[in-house]
Amino acid sequence: MTCTRRAICEFVGTACLLAAVVGSGIMGERLSGGNAAIALLANSIATGAALLALILTFGPISGAHFNPAVTLTAALRGRLSWRDVPPYVFGEIAGAFAGVACANGMFGLPPFFASAHTRSGWPQLFSEGLATVGLITVIYLCVEFHHEAVPVAVAAYITAAYWFTSSTSFANPAVTLARAATNTFAGIRPYDVPGFIVAQLIGAAVANLFLHWLQKPLTTVPVEIVDDSEKVVTH
Amino acid sequence: MTCTRRAICEFVGTACLLAAVVGSGIMGERLSGGNAAIALLANSIATGAALLALILTFGPISGAHFNPAVTLTAALRGRLSWRDVPPYVFGEIAGAFAGVACANGMFGLPPFFASAHTRSGWPQLFSEGLATVGLITVIYLCVEFHHEAVPVAVAAYITAAYWFTSSTSFANPAVTLARAATNTFAGIRPYDVPGFIVAQLIGAAVANLFLHWLQKPLTTVPVEIVDDSEKVVTH
Amino acid sequence: MTCTRRAICEFVGTACLLAAVVGSGIMGERLSGGNAAIALLANSIATGAALLALILTFGPISGAHFNPAVTLTAALRGRLSWRDVPPYVFGEIAGAFAGVACANGMFGLPPFFASAHTRSGWPQLFSEGLATVGLITVIYLCVEFHHEAVPVAVAAYITAAYWFTSSTSFANPAVTLARAATNTFAGIRPYDVPGFIVAQLIGAAVANLFLHWLQKPLTTVPVEIVDDSEKVVTH
Amino acid sequence: MTCTRRAICEFVGTACLLAAVVGSGIMGERLSGGNAAIALLANSIATGAALLALILTFGPISGAHFNPAVTLTAALRGRLSWRDVPPYVFGEIAGAFAGVACANGMFGLPPFFASAHTRSGWPQLFSEGLATVGLITVIYLCVEFHHEAVPVAVAAYITAAYWFTSSTSFANPAVTLARAATNTFAGIRPYDVPGFIVAQLIGAAVANLFLHWLQKPLTTVPVEIVDDSEKVVTH
Repeated sequence: MTCTRRAICEFVGTACLLAAVVGSGIMGERLSGGNAAIALLANSIATGAALLALILTFGPISGAHFNPAVTLTAALRGRLSWRDVPPYVFGEIAGAFAGVACANGMFGLPPFFASAHTRSGWPQLFSEGLATVGLITVIYLCVEFHHEAVPVAVAAYITAAYWFTSSTSFANPAVTLARAATNTFAGIRPYDVPGFIVAQLIGAAVANLFLHWLQKPLTTVPVEIVDDSEKVVTH
Repeated sequence: MTCTRRAICEFVGTACLLAAVVGSGIMGERLSGGNAAIALLANSIATGAALLALILTFGPISGAHFNPAVTLTAALRGRLSWRDVPPYVFGEIAGAFAGVACANGMFGLPPFFASAHTRSGWPQLFSEGLATVGLITVIYLCVEFHHEAVPVAVAAYITAAYWFTSSTSFANPAVTLARAATNTFAGIRPYDVPGFIVAQLIGAAVANLFLHWLQKPLTTVPVEIVDDSEKVVTH
Repeated sequence: MTCTRRAICEFVGTACLLAAVVGSGIMGERLSGGNAAIALLANSIATGAALLALILTFGPISGAHFNPAVTLTAALRGRLSWRDVPPYVFGEIAGAFAGVACANGMFGLPPFFASAHTRSGWPQLFSEGLATVGLITVIYLCVEFHHEAVPVAVAAYITAAYWFTSSTSFANPAVTLARAATNTFAGIRPYDVPGFIVAQLIGAAVANLFLHWLQKPLTTVPVEIVDDSEKVVTH
Repeated sequence: MTCTRRAICEFVGTACLLAAVVGSGIMGERLSGGNAAIALLANSIATGAALLALILTFGPISGAHFNPAVTLTAALRGRLSWRDVPPYVFGEIAGAFAGVACANGMFGLPPFFASAHTRSGWPQLFSEGLATVGLITVIYLCVEFHHEAVPVAVAAYITAAYWFTSSTSFANPAVTLARAATNTFAGIRPYDVPGFIVAQLIGAAVANLFLHWLQKPLTTVPVEIVDDSEKVVTH
């Protein structure tokens, strides 16, 4: 399929993802009577479920990256032409903003309005870095060994990461930019966006180094695996 | 299998689906002590789980549409004979009402009693339109690329869409009609039904146009895919 | 594998299932501060997850029935020798009681103590009947068409059925008997047990008739399927 | 792949697992306004989802044990060289502590600080024993019969076991040691650690005996299976 059409799929998929992230945050906050744990439970389950459906839907067409850090890693690892990176990233960022506008519209809010949700401090930056290391590692080891498991693995990872990081795991520069444009449960103050994105890119770089180091022997030294203790253990 | 038997499977499956939607709404509302987020969490998880079980169960027999918008799309896309559309749609609508009666009966309520649950306004109509675009797109791209993923993708999508739309995502004309006949958590005021159904049909039409546009090159211009950057990226 | 060993697997698996049902009910009730919806959410998610793990674990050995209604249906449908039914059912009932004793023991309660949890009235009996019709139908249509989907389908069905029936869907005579022996969240007053079991057996009979009627043409009249509209629609 | 690299994968995976267990416990406790059931619901869903993602990710490389009891069983059952056991167990324990430090760091807490969370008494020790019997049985019967189901089965089992045991099912000596180093929701008083570990090892031994007894006829007496009632019933 042409790159334009694949980039449009990235646009549509990322829009759906952001509609799910932001919309379920609004609904969760409105209904939960002030109990933030219940709102986040709804938000995390809805986000994970949406990711599962969307990656199953668009994965066979565009790869269902929905995330510039994932697109860059795909290019670095030779799974996407570098020429496709700009349209993909543009589609993801534009789609993220379109999704935020849809979510706001579905709940009768203005399409865009700046978030006042403070998300700052080293613990949250550390969270974003770690969350992105984990996400990239999960995706590309699954891609390598059993790519049909990617939708489930990513959905499960993000559902968990909403809870185990203090930042609720954005782990996605396009998502971070667009979530600054909604002053609701899932929002982030524009002032805090650059720090999050830098932390995510550092995390993505660390994950790429880890993957590079880990997989080297898989392709270059199989002939050395002569010892019984060296066999790959599948369980 | 004969069309009659398949239509009866649509009847039975849609009845089970509505029993799950309405029954879990009643149980959630009764037990949650006024916290609507907990009631909706139960309702969305139960609906998603029921859909997963029912599509796995009836999918190999009738296709497990349970939804006239899905049946119409199947006919439009050449996956169902137009002659089968009327019995399918009749089975779905009759099944939906039968399921509502079962749910009401299981909780000691009269089989049918009109809902007073107001669901109106442009944001909710916009929600229904978007929810249906998403549902039809998820179903038919999965059908196209890996149809065994349909049960999981639909269940995950609907679980998420309960939360990310302000209408809680009916996305199904038969379901909408029947939910007017129960004045419980999942009900909808009869007066609001036509707007929902129109929005759903517009959404289904938009999804069909998107699918038509997207898939054209898949079948008509594969020979043009000569450029390295044009290859389908599976991840 | 010998029938004895398979029956012991039914014993072990049913014990684990009951430990999960009763134990998660106790934990849910203890922690939820009186909000029964949160307790039931925990109880339903834990039961569904346990069923998924247990059917994956014991399915390839004994079939993972854990339920006399499922065992009887297996025999009726020629999937289990009638000679195996008594040891299977005995293993299931003994396992159910062993599981209740384990759950009670894990929470510092006496192994067995009669429940005072009233579960009576026509709506609950109707619920048990319907729940069992659904369970048997889900299991045996999945067995017929894609048996590897049985663990997921059963787990999803039961998670949903905890919510959409007023009885919380026992749908299992062995489980019903044993749950009378724990005066905790998941218990049932001994006086109410016979009604539940009768309703379950009627439900199982109805499901068997439905399956028999539905599948007749699959094996006896395939040659008649000459019309385009008669083709099996997989989606 | 070399044993060192596989052991490093055990380190990384166990670190991620502990970050998920401890981090989601902190988040759940902070947000749930004192309702421990909601905190545990978040904690159990996040842990199950993280396990699913991590076993899919690292399973094809190191087996994704993340648990000395699983590693020992692998060696006992001939699925791992005994020479690999020390580096695996060292990687798991070191990874567990690294994960606790990451979780504490992500929430602005000191890397290590002793837990004051009392977890004692026979019911909790009995719980740990049973939980470990179940975990080892689930893993190794799935490994035997359909190893691709291991990630889902383990994740589902642990999600359930958080609820159905009074100890919330540590079932893992490395996890138990490291959870003593965080005075948060998921912590355990150092004083209570040895009892838990002894109970887990006894549970693992019982599971190994059960597996040994159960599988004997599968490999040694297939020729005796001549009777119709003896056939393996897949459902």
